[in-house]
Amino acid sequence: MTVLPIEKFVPAVGWLRSYSFQDFPGDLTAGIITAILLVPQAMAYSILAGLPPEVGLYASIVPPILYALFGSSRALAVGPVAVASLMVASALGSLALPGSPDYILAALVLSALIGLFLLIMGIAKLGFLANFLSHPVMSGFTSAAAIVIAFSQLKHLLGLDIPRGARIDEAILYIFGHITDANSITVTVSVISLALLFVLRRYFGPILMRVGFSEAIANTLVKAGPMFVVIFMTFLSARMLWNETAGLVVVGSIPAGLPPLTLPEFDFALWRELAISAALIALVSFVESVAIARVLASKRRQKIDVNQELVGLGVANLGAAFSGGSPVCGGFSRSVVNFSAGANTQLAAIITACLIALSVLFFTPLFYYLPQAVLAAIIIVAVLGLVDFKALKVNWVYSKSDAAAWLVTFAVVMAEGIEMGIIAGVGISLILFLWRSSKPHIAIVGRVGSSEHFRNIKRHQVRTCPHVLAIRVDESLFFANTRYFENYILSAIVDQPEVKHVVFICSAINAIDGSALESLEQLITDLKSAGVTFHLAEVKGPVMDRLQRTHFLEHLKPGEVFLSTHEAFKALDCV
Amino acid sequence: MTVLPIEKFVPAVGWLRSYSFQDFPGDLTAGIITAILLVPQAMAYSILAGLPPEVGLYASIVPPILYALFGSSRALAVGPVAVASLMVASALGSLALPGSPDYILAALVLSALIGLFLLIMGIAKLGFLANFLSHPVMSGFTSAAAIVIAFSQLKHLLGLDIPRGARIDEAILYIFGHITDANSITVTVSVISLALLFVLRRYFGPILMRVGFSEAIANTLVKAGPMFVVIFMTFLSARMLWNETAGLVVVGSIPAGLPPLTLPEFDFALWRELAISAALIALVSFVESVAIARVLASKRRQKIDVNQELVGLGVANLGAAFSGGSPVCGGFSRSVVNFSAGANTQLAAIITACLIALSVLFFTPLFYYLPQAVLAAIIIVAVLGLVDFKALKVNWVYSKSDAAAWLVTFAVVMAEGIEMGIIAGVGISLILFLWRSSKPHIAIVGRVGSSEHFRNIKRHQVRTCPHVLAIRVDESLFFANTRYFENYILSAIVDQPEVKHVVFICSAINAIDGSALESLEQLITDLKSAGVTFHLAEVKGPVMDRLQRTHFLEHLKPGEVFLSTHEAFKALDCV
Repeated sequence: MTVLPIEKFVPAVGWLRSYSFQDFPGDLTAGIITAILLVPQAMAYSILAGLPPEVGLYASIVPPILYALFGSSRALAVGPVAVASLMVASALGSLALPGSPDYILAALVLSALIGLFLLIMGIAKLGFLANFLSHPVMSGFTSAAAIVIAFSQLKHLLGLDIPRGARIDEAILYIFGHITDANSITVTVSVISLALLFVLRRYFGPILMRVGFSEAIANTLVKAGPMFVVIFMTFLSARMLWNETAGLVVVGSIPAGLPPLTLPEFDFALWRELAISAALIALVSFVESVAIARVLASKRRQKIDVNQELVGLGVANLGAAFSGGSPVCGGFSRSVVNFSAGANTQLAAIITACLIALSVLFFTPLFYYLPQAVLAAIIIVAVLGLVDFKALKVNWVYSKSDAAAWLVTFAVVMAEGIEMGIIAGVGISLILFLWRSSKPHIAIVGRVGSSEHFRNIKRHQVRTCPHVLAIRVDESLFFANTRYFENYILSAIVDQPEVKHVVFICSAINAIDGSALESLEQLITDLKSAGVTFHLAEVKGPVMDRLQRTHFLEHLKPGEVFLSTHEAFKALDCV
Repeated sequence: MTVLPIEKFVPAVGWLRSYSFQDFPGDLTAGIITAILLVPQAMAYSILAGLPPEVGLYASIVPPILYALFGSSRALAVGPVAVASLMVASALGSLALPGSPDYILAALVLSALIGLFLLIMGIAKLGFLANFLSHPVMSGFTSAAAIVIAFSQLKHLLGLDIPRGARIDEAILYIFGHITDANSITVTVSVISLALLFVLRRYFGPILMRVGFSEAIANTLVKAGPMFVVIFMTFLSARMLWNETAGLVVVGSIPAGLPPLTLPEFDFALWRELAISAALIALVSFVESVAIARVLASKRRQKIDVNQELVGLGVANLGAAFSGGSPVCGGFSRSVVNFSAGANTQLAAIITACLIALSVLFFTPLFYYLPQAVLAAIIIVAVLGLVDFKALKVNWVYSKSDAAAWLVTFAVVMAEGIEMGIIAGVGISLILFLWRSSKPHIAIVGRVGSSEHFRNIKRHQVRTCPHVLAIRVDESLFFANTRYFENYILSAIVDQPEVKHVVFICSAINAIDGSALESLEQLITDLKSAGVTFHLAEVKGPVMDRLQRTHFLEHLKPGEVFLSTHEAFKALDCV
């Protein structure tokens, strides 16, 4: 099938044109199941972000439809997610009171900024910037964020007024000090919800299988567990009127109706203030979403286009900004549910979005008596799966520096908050990266027997001459390693005062950047003033072409460019 | 000679123990000449930093002596320099009024912070962090800083009150609007000073050589030009009492006496506020100093220890903080003067420091009538040599991305100031770096004829089998390139649905970091679920040892580890 030009920008055109109605049953089932999972999650994560529950529902309508059109993954389910919601709360917490109109407006600006960042990165093909985040950093970050999120829900579970912005240690002290003030009905509801969620998760699947459901269907139905708990507890709470009789906090009235058309305020000071937070949320959202999308795509031998993902996520977040939603990205558990419930195309996501739109239109009164403690329990059960100390252990055994990156990121998130944590993580990744890249492998080589082969003097029995130093760098030369090879060569000639010629073997050098060219010229000058001539050997064609555009080869004189190391040795009387 | 343990920490012990009195005449001459150059420079750069002139002189006494003891360079001359002084002015400008007691105290804190940063980096052996700054970024930064410095001196040259903090375009507009307010005597003094400085620079050397001085001595004496101009103009200004009769601004009284013992205030808020500026100044100072030290050392086949340089510069800056000075680093022109005037050891720097101490004790009254316009002229002549548009041109021809880095850094310094400029420069360097590193060279290989050699299918005529895909990555695997090779392999198997086995040839892989290991495991799982088995071939010993510490090899099953690509092909029935 030919690829229409528009398909390059709107991948949906591709799957829509070739849509086969055999795919429809899978898409429909997946759409329904995902919606059942998403409704409680969307409300819960919205509250976690400090926003009213409907904002999370709005974010599950327009943004996923836009992602369905512009994203490249077939099965990624987009909406509010836990870690990004915590980052939203942390970004907006100092600007306005959670839940206040100013806070909601600022959330729209944040969504718009995140969308713009992602879209610009996608158009400029900057997907490689996700490399700023290494796996251990991402794992340490997510684990710590999950613990912070779990603790942040304790106030809902216990019905305690833990002061906003309290650190974990302060929150724990507060709880110990005020445990007698906890609301007993709230605690009861929390305990029942947590117990039900755990029991459903562990035993519901096997029971379903025993009564004859297939493993796939059983596993998918298990994911609807939170919805069962929501329905059951809401029924109980409505029946007993605990909110009126015993002070149980419930979700309350959610405005009915489709998402409003909103316009993120253009207040330059606010945009500027939120820019860094937005960039960090964009980065984390992107890395998470692509990781999930890639896992799912590879299971069916489909491709993910990283830059198209940026465009899809960017447009989705812009959609959130204009439809009263909060920032969105791909969620792990819901994408897996969507995929294993049979989603073949993004039509499943569109069906999910339509079902959520229906529930916002007609079913919001049903959530009036839903206790917030139930949503808190759902959040806790969802995020505890993200805590991954095993990754630390594996890294510790395999690579101490990766384990250190994990630990530092984890510790900084716990001590200094989620934004500083991700900044510290990126910083550490970069430092490890620079450290690693700043030391290319360098070998001093000599002749093997009387052959034309030259090998590392440390590993092979080779012959050398005192007046010739032949050095091979096994990496392209660029600014991160210029200092190292400069130093290496200068040190070598200091240690061997009888050296008169340096032969620089370029067989493994694919490119020389501007910094390295300048370093080489400086090195040549320095060596000249120390009475040493610098020669090149085995320079690759493309490298030579670029050198010839500069004055480098004149500068090299009396140094020469030899075709091979053998010729260099012959010309320098080292036989 | 044996190396005493203390020499590792105090390199001066080395050259002091082995000091030969043959070195003394050179050290003495260099010490005197450098002092003559340094006195006017120290005062001028101090005024540029917004500090009283004596602060620059204090910074030229204790810090260079400390550097002499702890630094590893034999010829580096340490003291206040132009670019760092501009950065100091920019860091402190928003905190206090230049020259006020608060401003001077903040400068001490800044010196202490810079010293601590450098010292900690040195002790932790983080010298490689200087790789954050590529040559084009450093060149664009210095060029723009030099222009900013030159413009900042116009107010002294013209005797105009250009508002503090004005951008270059605002300053130019102000000058055009107020040119009639310029002080005529000040302008006259400036023109004469600039003319003398240029004439001395260009014609003094040839004249000296014609009357019989050697080229080396002539070139060195030329460097004393600024001191001649200072003496001549001060004499003129004192004789005519222009400061009283015509409003010429003069340096005025400088307190006599040795540097005071000062204690940088421990005000946590101030330390925190100055931390980023201090880190940036430390980075720039370090990169500059090491570049100069390395050039000079290599001329005499001496070595520079990058981490020891950090210690030396760190201790020097701490010394500045405790002796009333301003931040210091190695200066290019004065180090070259010191070196070419014959400095053999840091004794020359100690002699310079003693001479400056003498002049602070006894000669400060002589500078009373020194016009500030003369110091401004000295600054302008000194910094204009730093503007290096040629570097832009060379980079443009050789490497567009390096030229872009130069231009962006230059433009951001001009538009947003010196700190944002260096931050932008570091950012661009890192992005270029990541971009470059994120795309390792990958080849799909096939068998050459019926040999046991395997080569890139794009470059050689080779035989392959449809069910086996053999891939060779020509770089170590680590987090910056994991996404690329993952994607590459997943794309390749999507394009070739008949592939059942992937053979991953590790002959060029020296290390696999934690992120890459995790990616490989994920890739193996993904490939399994797509019905493809993943095998390794030609794994190096150290890499294999580390893999065996994990569960990777169990995870790999039924994939195998083959000794060679040939064996892999044989086992997979691809002959």
